[in-house]
Amino acid sequence: MSGFHGLFIPGPTNMPFPVRQAMDLPLEDQRAPDFPAFTLPLFRDLKKVFRTESGQIFLFPSSGTGGWEAAITNTLSPGDKVLIAVFGQFSHLWADLCRRHGFDVDVLDVAWGEGFPLDACEARLKADRAHEIKAVLVCHNETATGVTSDVGGVRRALEAARHPALLMVDGVSSIASIDFRMDEWGVDIAVCGSQKGFMLPTGLAIVGVSQKALDAHKTAKCPRGFFDFTMMGNANKDGFFPYTPATTLLRGLRASVDMLLGEGLDNVAARHHRLAEGARAGVAAWGLSLCAKAPKWYSDTVTAICVPKGFNSDDVIKTAYHRYQLSLGLGLTKVAGKVFRIGHIGHVNEIMILQALAGCEMALRDVGIDVAPGSGVAAAQEHYRETAPRMELPKVA
Amino acid sequence: MSGFHGLFIPGPTNMPFPVRQAMDLPLEDQRAPDFPAFTLPLFRDLKKVFRTESGQIFLFPSSGTGGWEAAITNTLSPGDKVLIAVFGQFSHLWADLCRRHGFDVDVLDVAWGEGFPLDACEARLKADRAHEIKAVLVCHNETATGVTSDVGGVRRALEAARHPALLMVDGVSSIASIDFRMDEWGVDIAVCGSQKGFMLPTGLAIVGVSQKALDAHKTAKCPRGFFDFTMMGNANKDGFFPYTPATTLLRGLRASVDMLLGEGLDNVAARHHRLAEGARAGVAAWGLSLCAKAPKWYSDTVTAICVPKGFNSDDVIKTAYHRYQLSLGLGLTKVAGKVFRIGHIGHVNEIMILQALAGCEMALRDVGIDVAPGSGVAAAQEHYRETAPRMELPKVA
Amino acid sequence: MSGFHGLFIPGPTNMPFPVRQAMDLPLEDQRAPDFPAFTLPLFRDLKKVFRTESGQIFLFPSSGTGGWEAAITNTLSPGDKVLIAVFGQFSHLWADLCRRHGFDVDVLDVAWGEGFPLDACEARLKADRAHEIKAVLVCHNETATGVTSDVGGVRRALEAARHPALLMVDGVSSIASIDFRMDEWGVDIAVCGSQKGFMLPTGLAIVGVSQKALDAHKTAKCPRGFFDFTMMGNANKDGFFPYTPATTLLRGLRASVDMLLGEGLDNVAARHHRLAEGARAGVAAWGLSLCAKAPKWYSDTVTAICVPKGFNSDDVIKTAYHRYQLSLGLGLTKVAGKVFRIGHIGHVNEIMILQALAGCEMALRDVGIDVAPGSGVAAAQEHYRETAPRMELPKVA
Amino acid sequence: MSGFHGLFIPGPTNMPFPVRQAMDLPLEDQRAPDFPAFTLPLFRDLKKVFRTESGQIFLFPSSGTGGWEAAITNTLSPGDKVLIAVFGQFSHLWADLCRRHGFDVDVLDVAWGEGFPLDACEARLKADRAHEIKAVLVCHNETATGVTSDVGGVRRALEAARHPALLMVDGVSSIASIDFRMDEWGVDIAVCGSQKGFMLPTGLAIVGVSQKALDAHKTAKCPRGFFDFTMMGNANKDGFFPYTPATTLLRGLRASVDMLLGEGLDNVAARHHRLAEGARAGVAAWGLSLCAKAPKWYSDTVTAICVPKGFNSDDVIKTAYHRYQLSLGLGLTKVAGKVFRIGHIGHVNEIMILQALAGCEMALRDVGIDVAPGSGVAAAQEHYRETAPRMELPKVA
Repeated sequence: MSGFHGLFIPGPTNMPFPVRQAMDLPLEDQRAPDFPAFTLPLFRDLKKVFRTESGQIFLFPSSGTGGWEAAITNTLSPGDKVLIAVFGQFSHLWADLCRRHGFDVDVLDVAWGEGFPLDACEARLKADRAHEIKAVLVCHNETATGVTSDVGGVRRALEAARHPALLMVDGVSSIASIDFRMDEWGVDIAVCGSQKGFMLPTGLAIVGVSQKALDAHKTAKCPRGFFDFTMMGNANKDGFFPYTPATTLLRGLRASVDMLLGEGLDNVAARHHRLAEGARAGVAAWGLSLCAKAPKWYSDTVTAICVPKGFNSDDVIKTAYHRYQLSLGLGLTKVAGKVFRIGHIGHVNEIMILQALAGCEMALRDVGIDVAPGSGVAAAQEHYRETAPRMELPKVA
Repeated sequence: MSGFHGLFIPGPTNMPFPVRQAMDLPLEDQRAPDFPAFTLPLFRDLKKVFRTESGQIFLFPSSGTGGWEAAITNTLSPGDKVLIAVFGQFSHLWADLCRRHGFDVDVLDVAWGEGFPLDACEARLKADRAHEIKAVLVCHNETATGVTSDVGGVRRALEAARHPALLMVDGVSSIASIDFRMDEWGVDIAVCGSQKGFMLPTGLAIVGVSQKALDAHKTAKCPRGFFDFTMMGNANKDGFFPYTPATTLLRGLRASVDMLLGEGLDNVAARHHRLAEGARAGVAAWGLSLCAKAPKWYSDTVTAICVPKGFNSDDVIKTAYHRYQLSLGLGLTKVAGKVFRIGHIGHVNEIMILQALAGCEMALRDVGIDVAPGSGVAAAQEHYRETAPRMELPKVA
Repeated sequence: MSGFHGLFIPGPTNMPFPVRQAMDLPLEDQRAPDFPAFTLPLFRDLKKVFRTESGQIFLFPSSGTGGWEAAITNTLSPGDKVLIAVFGQFSHLWADLCRRHGFDVDVLDVAWGEGFPLDACEARLKADRAHEIKAVLVCHNETATGVTSDVGGVRRALEAARHPALLMVDGVSSIASIDFRMDEWGVDIAVCGSQKGFMLPTGLAIVGVSQKALDAHKTAKCPRGFFDFTMMGNANKDGFFPYTPATTLLRGLRASVDMLLGEGLDNVAARHHRLAEGARAGVAAWGLSLCAKAPKWYSDTVTAICVPKGFNSDDVIKTAYHRYQLSLGLGLTKVAGKVFRIGHIGHVNEIMILQALAGCEMALRDVGIDVAPGSGVAAAQEHYRETAPRMELPKVA
Repeated sequence: MSGFHGLFIPGPTNMPFPVRQAMDLPLEDQRAPDFPAFTLPLFRDLKKVFRTESGQIFLFPSSGTGGWEAAITNTLSPGDKVLIAVFGQFSHLWADLCRRHGFDVDVLDVAWGEGFPLDACEARLKADRAHEIKAVLVCHNETATGVTSDVGGVRRALEAARHPALLMVDGVSSIASIDFRMDEWGVDIAVCGSQKGFMLPTGLAIVGVSQKALDAHKTAKCPRGFFDFTMMGNANKDGFFPYTPATTLLRGLRASVDMLLGEGLDNVAARHHRLAEGARAGVAAWGLSLCAKAPKWYSDTVTAICVPKGFNSDDVIKTAYHRYQLSLGLGLTKVAGKVFRIGHIGHVNEIMILQALAGCEMALRDVGIDVAPGSGVAAAQEHYRETAPRMELPKVA
């Protein structure tokens, strides 16, 4: 088909051209004498993106799911109790992974569309006088429902309960896009993947680990090999890897980190917020409701939208895909058929969001959902115009 | 800046990924023994795109302007009279080039926004009993004003006057996008460039030449070297070139021709028409007028839009560029400040046009032109929805 | 530095341009309705590369090490006994991984430079009347020493002992390059990575699994999540993945598989053999000895070369790298300082091997090892000349 | 076929990866408000590569042949006398181009294999008391024969004769590789192409023009349009172009100029000399002779080698190409069948030259020319070893 396909799923995301260019190179020797001159500064700068000074970054040729597995198998022992709140498909899957690895999984079950239940968590922690709970697992941004939770609040709950459990965060669709502060929030393990805010192809689990988690690792008894922190860390400290790393992605990651730090993490987060506000203004203009139940939970990286009763969101998505070359996110499991999602994470700008909204409007109307043509676009436009930065004129070098 | 820049000028255009991929390769030996196995079929298939069987295609490492020069210097002699209609910047420039090469240029001066004046042309030809006019030069699609002229009509005028002049056509922004029929219309020289309907980087003049023009070439006395048909043709007939060809672009051209012939030239033209109709519906919804003065002249590759009196179109363009990452076409010379242009040529689809319209709406409103937010988008959406092809479901191989 | 760097490590390998081009594309929606139309034929054709009809292919965003882990954790239970021969760094690491996952590892310790000990294996299997050994693990091509073992022979040993153990093969540096026959040899699990014979960037574990292994999987009790066959297979059967796959690598893999099947697997193996013979002729001309102790073990994908006593192979490698832009393989652990390696796996031809030999000669002489200048190159040249295919002249299409 | 093809023609050359990456980007608006911020510094830095402060650089979407045409048609008038020495195919073609444009061409005919005849030139200039000769045309590096001439010597001849003729230089295969000094040598027009020392795809004529030549331009009467300095210069001074420039190549040119200035022009020339000396040592070891008749004329960018009587150099080239994937330069016209050429211009290093020599040795022996296997490689190796820079160890950033 003619023209560019619009990719508006909440990951994989749109790759910037500098990132593509950085990866369009031959393969290289991962044991070359000058390889550490490349990798050591990369590890150092990744810590800036995670906003940690004392933590350590691990890079596995894997995905976010692999990052989840690395987090729990490196720091816990079979039978350990973990506390996790489930309020969407990805928090559900992480809980499931814990069960597969033989943990005692204590689930805080929350309605999909809500976020992490701080009060219930605090109550559960306070009740756990024996400190049987070894880790609290938080999905920072639930990609399935477009819900962002308060990770700092979880740290405060742990402090209020004076509870020593590790705080593990799924930051797959938040780190490098939404505001994330590993040290300030006392996050012990932060899991990210390459294909979201880092704007890269899938293939890297990027995991931040605190000193406290590294201490826990020393006595953790889960079997592990591929994802072992010790084996990886021993090689990493000299700038190498214990097995062949995905050098192509590492070169792209360098370009991505340069872009993120060049823009500034606060600016990155502000941009995501401003763009997401436009998307939400568009949904409001359509008269449709979000899956996220309250503004405090609105995600700045993905907007999940409910279709009216009697309609199937899959029809919207298939129509957008086949007729208008627009990829939208599916409704998953519990919200299958009820929700479609617009991803606005990573390399995005105003005219891209407007394109997504315009395409959605056509698909919604095609399947019979009566939104006014151009209404969402108009609402987003006015938001962007009002909040546009003052225009800077280019200077000649 | 974050996100993809929107390129909506009438060329250079948006490159399809298969074309980019085809060019992402090492350089090669243009005298390699198997090079003709690549070039000869390429020449053959280019003739299909020009819709000529008896003509011959020439490829110069150059641009459309070089193609104009090749056309006139190869077939005419200094002092020869040429008849050309000027109704925009590009027809003006071609006339200027003729003067620079010492021809007697007979200009049919037409208001910008109108197209080639068939009646005036026929009258002039009939009056030229001595057949002093050696060539009639037609700008098929005047990119500056968004006006398409009737090339078949010019052939009919020549026939009505029984005039032997060569018919030369600037098809830079029409060939491979708008309907173009070299043999059927009796076009003697058709000039195109790589960076328009062929969806390639700038750097190739692609010139179709009839047998009649090749005959004229034999006695044409203009000095020429780089652009000489004989020198080029002698090498081409064996699949080689008289000097180093732009092999990278030739490899991309192969991919481009495959895409065009794969879609089918009629489908390509129909797609451009449908997309352009949407853009024009958007402009109408804004309440703005086109530079093209009558529907018969509406261009399917570029829409030139007049800003209301008291406004400067440059402000619209600069605002779109700097604030919203959207490139629009400038108003050139006579219509500078009065017109901005949306290019919709080549690798384009519905959601791209909607993006362009949405960006324009923001920029227009920013400079104070009171178009209703989302109005143009809405009009185009409804046009695209009504004319969308039935949805085809993918099949598993 | 100027000029192309020479990459002659035994993986990552040199990427063909069609593979690079296939990956130079935007990211895509892994849940798109037409995604299975891409993935299902890919799975089908991968089976051809593994030469299996009844087996199943799994693709994990991981590396060869991850493939090893997938093999053992999916089919065995903690405490199970595995029989493995260790004769190099990679067989050593696989044994180590087994220990990390809690298996009872029965090691056949063999001198580095020899291959899998068929007789000792058969004896051990015959002695195991209780069938406590659940799996025999074979490193088909030990990359550290340049030794290829006889996998078919291991199957015969199992048959001779009428032993039901699973036959697991590390084919990381053999599959898609050296002759490998999954069904014929009764291989139950075959592990490969993307960055060797598949000529892709690192990032995929490619694992072939027999029906017998899938049956064993049903009762295997090792904890697993990321690498779980059931979870992966359930999604794969419809052409999808349980978590985000590395779509970029999958697109490259399509190009790679097309190249391999286009050349023909027998031709691929013959080419590797012919090129390796030239490299070995060069080493013989230098008067140096191979790490591999007997011709039956010579590897066609990597040649490990011993430096004379009193010299350090690291000096050769560093000189080649820094002074002549040539990457050679290090000697690992037991053979560190004693061995350097020339990789000739994947996308290689005669003039590339000659380049590697020429560069080695300079580096060897620079560190004081007295090989005659040009001697290895000359020996390889004459081998290539004698075995060159008859020249085919290109045909014009 | 498997493996990388070796490209050792004297242009197009091997593209560095940074240059490829710089061009792997979307097309762009050549009238964008910030385009001059890119182009003006590029023009400025190109002057450094030409080593001119007072001159001006012109960039035409064309080739070296177009550059020749631009040089003569912009500064001369029909019938003007030009003095040119012909000693190879490319000097011959430039003389031919002059005739096509109607000049009175005074040819100094020299044996192929010799260089520009300084004495004969000086004599001719001194005899031209009326200053009828308007330009002296010098092919700095005759690519057909591997001969470099003394451009500074031509300036001295002009000075000795106190002759005001313009000094025009074909620097297509010398500028940005061999030492070239526009201001110091008083060169009035220097012509280069993108596909040689600039390591880019074909498609740009890069022309340096002195103030004296720009003055001559004001009264020069040759018809011209596409190549007109005035039209181009008027747009260039603001950072724009009069017609669509090849933006992709301009972006690559930026990367290329950065590489050249980063290495330093003196270092670039020294590298070419050192590598060429190795190639010539190889030829000497083969016992073959060069086309260049004296050391003072040896070219550092291309080595033309004579085959012994009774052999056809085309057979060597075809064998190398088809059997060993090696592209060598053909013998052209007068030396067709007698000469083959190894290009060593641009992005080249030691192991690439050794590869070329090794491939040549196989092809030479295949056709029956009795060179000793490995002999040329050995000679070049020893030259490179003796002249290798001290090894620098990498530093960790």
